[in-house]
Amino acid sequence: MDNVQMIGTKITAIKEYLYNFARTHSPTRLMSNENTYSLSREYCNLKYSDILPHNAESYPATKEFLMKVVDILLDYIKATNDRNAKVLDFRHPSEMIRLLDLEIPDTGLTLQQLLIDCSTTLKYQVRTGHPHFFNQLSCGLDLVSMAGEWLTATANTNMFTYEIAPVFILMENVVLQKMRELIGWNCGDSILAPGGSISNLYAFLAARHKMFPSYKERGLSSIGGQLVMFTSDQCHYSVKSCAAVCGLGTDNCVMVPSDERGRIIPSKLEELILERKAKGHIPFFVNATAGTTVIGAFDSIPEIADICKKYKLWLHIDAAWGGGLLLSRKYRHPRLTGIERSAKGLALWILRLQKRKKKKSRLSGVYRIKKSILIGADSVTWNPHKLMGTLLQCSTIHFKQDGLLISCNQMSAEYLFMTDKLYDVQYDTGDKVIQCGRHNDIFKLWLQWRAKGTEGFEKHMDRLMELTEYMVRRIKQMPDRYYLILEPEMVNVCFWYLPTRVRNMPHGPEREKILGEICPILKGRMMQAGTLMVGYQPDDRRPNFFRNIISSAAVTEADVDFLLAEMDRLGHDL
Amino acid sequence: MDNVQMIGTKITAIKEYLYNFARTHSPTRLMSNENTYSLSREYCNLKYSDILPHNAESYPATKEFLMKVVDILLDYIKATNDRNAKVLDFRHPSEMIRLLDLEIPDTGLTLQQLLIDCSTTLKYQVRTGHPHFFNQLSCGLDLVSMAGEWLTATANTNMFTYEIAPVFILMENVVLQKMRELIGWNCGDSILAPGGSISNLYAFLAARHKMFPSYKERGLSSIGGQLVMFTSDQCHYSVKSCAAVCGLGTDNCVMVPSDERGRIIPSKLEELILERKAKGHIPFFVNATAGTTVIGAFDSIPEIADICKKYKLWLHIDAAWGGGLLLSRKYRHPRLTGIERSAKGLALWILRLQKRKKKKSRLSGVYRIKKSILIGADSVTWNPHKLMGTLLQCSTIHFKQDGLLISCNQMSAEYLFMTDKLYDVQYDTGDKVIQCGRHNDIFKLWLQWRAKGTEGFEKHMDRLMELTEYMVRRIKQMPDRYYLILEPEMVNVCFWYLPTRVRNMPHGPEREKILGEICPILKGRMMQAGTLMVGYQPDDRRPNFFRNIISSAAVTEADVDFLLAEMDRLGHDL
Repeated sequence: MDNVQMIGTKITAIKEYLYNFARTHSPTRLMSNENTYSLSREYCNLKYSDILPHNAESYPATKEFLMKVVDILLDYIKATNDRNAKVLDFRHPSEMIRLLDLEIPDTGLTLQQLLIDCSTTLKYQVRTGHPHFFNQLSCGLDLVSMAGEWLTATANTNMFTYEIAPVFILMENVVLQKMRELIGWNCGDSILAPGGSISNLYAFLAARHKMFPSYKERGLSSIGGQLVMFTSDQCHYSVKSCAAVCGLGTDNCVMVPSDERGRIIPSKLEELILERKAKGHIPFFVNATAGTTVIGAFDSIPEIADICKKYKLWLHIDAAWGGGLLLSRKYRHPRLTGIERSAKGLALWILRLQKRKKKKSRLSGVYRIKKSILIGADSVTWNPHKLMGTLLQCSTIHFKQDGLLISCNQMSAEYLFMTDKLYDVQYDTGDKVIQCGRHNDIFKLWLQWRAKGTEGFEKHMDRLMELTEYMVRRIKQMPDRYYLILEPEMVNVCFWYLPTRVRNMPHGPEREKILGEICPILKGRMMQAGTLMVGYQPDDRRPNFFRNIISSAAVTEADVDFLLAEMDRLGHDL
Repeated sequence: MDNVQMIGTKITAIKEYLYNFARTHSPTRLMSNENTYSLSREYCNLKYSDILPHNAESYPATKEFLMKVVDILLDYIKATNDRNAKVLDFRHPSEMIRLLDLEIPDTGLTLQQLLIDCSTTLKYQVRTGHPHFFNQLSCGLDLVSMAGEWLTATANTNMFTYEIAPVFILMENVVLQKMRELIGWNCGDSILAPGGSISNLYAFLAARHKMFPSYKERGLSSIGGQLVMFTSDQCHYSVKSCAAVCGLGTDNCVMVPSDERGRIIPSKLEELILERKAKGHIPFFVNATAGTTVIGAFDSIPEIADICKKYKLWLHIDAAWGGGLLLSRKYRHPRLTGIERSAKGLALWILRLQKRKKKKSRLSGVYRIKKSILIGADSVTWNPHKLMGTLLQCSTIHFKQDGLLISCNQMSAEYLFMTDKLYDVQYDTGDKVIQCGRHNDIFKLWLQWRAKGTEGFEKHMDRLMELTEYMVRRIKQMPDRYYLILEPEMVNVCFWYLPTRVRNMPHGPEREKILGEICPILKGRMMQAGTLMVGYQPDDRRPNFFRNIISSAAVTEADVDFLLAEMDRLGHDL
């Protein structure tokens, strides 16, 4: 072991010698590499221990190092916004491992080498903010939010107490209250969580705690029956994961069938509730999705709320994806109607019902509709890092009832969250959460919201939907090349690309099979070319198909045109 | 509502007018405020929609805005490292709310206003990197790690697939493998999680899954008995929280008494296991803490491992705090002995046993010791964001057995984690975790490790321990002013400050009561003065006492001297 360490040290020393030799004797060779970010001669051999906080006199060197890092980042930002630059420089893992020097050395490297490391890392990183990156629910690089995240890093604090995060804690209160108002609640409580899955877990825990308060201390044995939760077969898999994590077992997370538009079928939900009740099980929790991951479907909240009221079940809305549309007066209804209590929502929802062909809906009288709208959700997950373009990560969970978060999650760790402090400790949040320490996810959202204003966010939502409508129109104009799978309710556009050889085939299972097989190949070509990224996946109704997401503020109509032309260029011969 | 919105818009417009008026007509007034970060005249009225990515031609303005933000951050870094600057400018929440403009506006503000926002935020933020901030387990501001976090923000990606985070995924593999090697494993699997509490939750889930594989689908009903877990009464409360979250109930998280040094009493652990078994319960999981939150105690791993082997229980080590010492050859043993399998560990542990007075230890023969050392831990939580000074958040969980993470947590979401991709999908991590998307917490650690090297981290650990020893020596030199509660095993120094009036009192419960009452007042004075921050808390043996943490690379002997002198200055008359 010690011998191995010694050899490691020697190798590192030799590497360093060679690096310094190369640097001194042929700077151009180094420049021809990716690195053009050189520290000045006096600093180029410095190491981490020569700068702050290790060396108190080293502010100038520290500043130069950080400014060079910023140069690298600014160049990356420039390239990210350059439509002529590639989205990615794809390498297979085996090749990437050879290309990069990822090794953890025994002896620390120079600051100059760290700059090379930063630059190389970004060279091979996928530019998720590029206008031609349509691959994920989170696309784009909001630069105000990014500036916020830089500040967050520098402030380097933890969100558990007002004591060490006073301003950020107050910001959290202001922003979360604003979000609850947008949901339609003038009370309640909220928290930021590390991602939508954990937000959904919070909802599950609060529901269980509210309905079976003895559970926290005494566990499942205190309930005397099998708890059951319900969600659609289109929901995010984190809902099912809750059932595994929390001891129900995934068999007791009932997947309710959805209709052809990906929306939960309310009558099936009721049937399945009754079926489980007949078995002696205890239904307690229903998850409705507002914006499914693949097709962007919205479950009908009022209909589900009505069932929840009837059977006294907790209604959670997973609006991690669709929540952003709460900001748009134009698109909020009817998609998220029922999440709140508003007369406008009611009117719009009636309009929607009238438009729908299925007049047999369980809910028809205005009285019943009104009732169900007044019920609404008990909890809502909403991820600003998705549709709102806030930097990763930024996820929120909201509860209509105040006080539940703390009574559910507090372990009364008096040694961490003392009550005899200088200030009003109701501002401390550590006892409300299951993570203890929390990353500061608020500043990037607060700063972004200050920059855009609520109106700016509304415009952003409307613009994304407008671009989606544009894309759908363009696809319909090219029926020989593109097949639209369904009219989107959100910015998810689901389609197949049709290569030349299938254009004359009638559409049916046989053609769908071919189109499905083409997806991974065409996606592979996109990545190899580096010009475009669009996601694909199968679902339970069809083989692989493309799902395009427009959630980046960088995208324009021209980018949508580019996307469609580029897929054709790369795929026509498949 | 619309009227309210209109009024809001008008107010914002008036505010903006006034702001611009003030800016144009009396720039010095503005300068005399906290803001000295003005955009040039041509950009000072720009808004978010005037820069990238909204305006493709706006790179110069975008750059200027971001550079001004960096100026603000650099000034903050300078002040953080300035011993003459304050640690904080304390304000009560009610006052802070009045001082700050936290409002979420309807209409977006100018970039200039955002700069003021950034500067004001940092003005009132607690400088957690200041050399006189000793308040949390995470102190300090490692500037290389911070540079890494700036890059992470700019790369803005998600860690679930190689597809969109190729370099970062490979870095994760390299760093986590290195950490497993440091634990002493040449195999296994690991993941980064949002904080130590969630890391501990991962350990719980994996243990339950391994021992009761039917649990994932069928839940508790498939086990037919009450699961029970064990931990010390000094453990982090997240262990207890696991029991609540996962359906056991906190009553079934058995708190094993600890000795006077905060270490679990192995014989009590065995007693309690037998007691629960006699009730028909099913013990399955033991948590041993390596570095408790308050006093920094290390449970004796070999003794606990032996019991775990005897009763076939999973052994988890919560080394969130103490894990960093794995990097120090000097301090690793005997604290973390038994976590791994090493002859050196064995020898050192025997030495420790011999030194200890309690010769009655259950384990005495070398044969038995050897056996138990060869068992070691099944899982280990280790937070680089604590002792290693990596920026928040950076927490890791490691498993000795490979394959467990994925079989435990995967929900086979084929729609998200396809297996027909261009590249080798074994590099995708999304199916291993309960969060789905994950923040990129690796780059800041990888870059920092490149900078320091493993040797640099070792030096850092040794230096922190050396400073702690210095502090203990100094405290002992001032028995009239300081009362050391116990010899620290880690960088936690637990003590009371003795104001003048108690100096002649004999030490006992009466004096301890007074000293406990003094803690919040003295802490309040520190915060009001803004010169120092040291934490305090009670535990189950004593009232409030101070717990000082030296985990920042910025701290020197002179800072320790300052701390002791400043507490005396602020508290002598209490």
